[in-house]
Amino acid sequence: MKIVGIVGSIFGSKTKKVLSEITFVDNVDYEIIDLSEVQLDFADGRDYREYNTETATLVEKILSADALIIGSPIYQASIPGALKNVFDLLPKQAIKDIPVGIVMTAGSYNHFLVPEYQLKPILAYMEADIIEKYVFIGPNSFEQSELVDDDIFFRLENLAERLVVRTKSKQAEYKERFDF
Amino acid sequence: MKIVGIVGSIFGSKTKKVLSEITFVDNVDYEIIDLSEVQLDFADGRDYREYNTETATLVEKILSADALIIGSPIYQASIPGALKNVFDLLPKQAIKDIPVGIVMTAGSYNHFLVPEYQLKPILAYMEADIIEKYVFIGPNSFEQSELVDDDIFFRLENLAERLVVRTKSKQAEYKERFDF
Amino acid sequence: MKIVGIVGSIFGSKTKKVLSEITFVDNVDYEIIDLSEVQLDFADGRDYREYNTETATLVEKILSADALIIGSPIYQASIPGALKNVFDLLPKQAIKDIPVGIVMTAGSYNHFLVPEYQLKPILAYMEADIIEKYVFIGPNSFEQSELVDDDIFFRLENLAERLVVRTKSKQAEYKERFDF
Amino acid sequence: MKIVGIVGSIFGSKTKKVLSEITFVDNVDYEIIDLSEVQLDFADGRDYREYNTETATLVEKILSADALIIGSPIYQASIPGALKNVFDLLPKQAIKDIPVGIVMTAGSYNHFLVPEYQLKPILAYMEADIIEKYVFIGPNSFEQSELVDDDIFFRLENLAERLVVRTKSKQAEYKERFDF
Repeated sequence: MKIVGIVGSIFGSKTKKVLSEITFVDNVDYEIIDLSEVQLDFADGRDYREYNTETATLVEKILSADALIIGSPIYQASIPGALKNVFDLLPKQAIKDIPVGIVMTAGSYNHFLVPEYQLKPILAYMEADIIEKYVFIGPNSFEQSELVDDDIFFRLENLAERLVVRTKSKQAEYKERFDF
Repeated sequence: MKIVGIVGSIFGSKTKKVLSEITFVDNVDYEIIDLSEVQLDFADGRDYREYNTETATLVEKILSADALIIGSPIYQASIPGALKNVFDLLPKQAIKDIPVGIVMTAGSYNHFLVPEYQLKPILAYMEADIIEKYVFIGPNSFEQSELVDDDIFFRLENLAERLVVRTKSKQAEYKERFDF
Repeated sequence: MKIVGIVGSIFGSKTKKVLSEITFVDNVDYEIIDLSEVQLDFADGRDYREYNTETATLVEKILSADALIIGSPIYQASIPGALKNVFDLLPKQAIKDIPVGIVMTAGSYNHFLVPEYQLKPILAYMEADIIEKYVFIGPNSFEQSELVDDDIFFRLENLAERLVVRTKSKQAEYKERFDF
Repeated sequence: MKIVGIVGSIFGSKTKKVLSEITFVDNVDYEIIDLSEVQLDFADGRDYREYNTETATLVEKILSADALIIGSPIYQASIPGALKNVFDLLPKQAIKDIPVGIVMTAGSYNHFLVPEYQLKPILAYMEADIIEKYVFIGPNSFEQSELVDDDIFFRLENLAERLVVRTKSKQAEYKERFDF
């Protein structure tokens, strides 16, 4: 099973730190893609294979994933433009039925509902299979940019578990339907 | 009075076409910035003067505007990443109290509430002075990429008028407070 | 399997009509509760057993359901106050993990995103297991208050099927965990 | 100038307490209507004059107001059904162009965006003249159900001031247009 974690921030280290803390049991191939390390083109309607190599590779990795974790900080009360641009690069059916977990880091608890209202509706439009319960990580969970909150570790573990269960049951369902 | 119209799409011609149809009475200096013509850097927390010249100039023009019109198509049920990136580039107080009008073009009437839920909350966070009534332009208003809907022309005129009135009353208020 | 359909409107017949068109295969006990026929108390923090009999019975039926279908018209760009009041009556964990399907009837396609932004976040807060893809029924699907749109019939069938599959897999999961 | 404050909760005392703390300079007639003291009918499409006397009087008071303050607690991550029902009772144009301020009390800062996403879009649909900056009052601002937060007192004062200024400028505008 291939799970791709996307670090949707261009600067700052918290989101990447958090995605790195997620571990999977089973034989999951978990790869983290950090947008700050990708030379990203802006989406302009081209077929994704016609963007620069790094952008095309990013899209290919997402397309080949069995499940995704979207990790994102909050910029101006929403997701970063860079992360939104990644969705814009994707073909419309790219993540249809794909299980997607959400992890948000934020400087204030006032932003708690940003994933609910700014991110989920985009994923719903793309018909992803959203894990409803997201992990929101506010300022109190960090100490000198280290994640120190046991409850958050527990929630991350729980998210990883749900993601694997959901993906497996999806694969079993597909097998049953198409694999004879 | 300086009003800047931002064409938030990287491809397609409808949004630009629509912003070009807006005219102002009075001595308004109306400049349209088309994001597809700007070599845009992704926001990474730098001071805006340290981005490439085109990106820095874009921000400067926004900062110098007395009012804004945000023109945007809809990508994946939200605003384009490129447009979101423009907000990410701005200092937090950049558009505080600045009157902002919204014009959205869309391929389906199902997207009617996207400006309400995806764009306004960002502008509200930045404390812009939002003109509540936005102009939503669905597929029936275009014929061969020409705007042919009288009702839309009327609404655009109305938006322009409200924007000017709001800006003037803002300026009068400031004058009264600070200009003695 | 017990599935409860809630007609969230106090007047008008469309929502009830639509919920009546939903049929289930398998041995599903499908009961429709029409809010216009319930003498509803306003939620005021009491234990639900202390409301009037009809209100208490409504809550009990919801609590005993294995899955729900929320049927709702749109009033003032949101769900009716009466329907919101039903959620207010429920104990916080009342619909946790319960599969919930959504059907909305509306007089305009401009309201398409109302379930996404006004209803789903409430269900997500209550930790229901939301069927992401809702059935939105605009004015063109009705002729003289009869549902005449084959695509909508297909979607309703699909929603019913998903709801049953989701409920079964939930029950199987519980059985595995607790039933030894 | 007539300003009506609506206490949108059916139980609990915080919202009422807060609305009572708001004071107005000038000759403002400020009346607080507490929904817990109104025998409220559910909206069913009738003309408002045909509801019971208390409900009809509530609507009449709202219709006669020059500006409104909506005070609301948060139930199930949204406004109470009783408050939503008040909007449902109103004719569509009832609060068009009427300045409306928002005050929300909540048990958690996680709910900070509820007014932004659950209340403002309803008011925007009704074309009210929303004061964008709402006053959100979390648990830390109360001590034994007394409001003890100077910052909140300051914000309430500010909201009241903005509401009066907005209403006056509205009235001046109308006078200019129609009063010759």
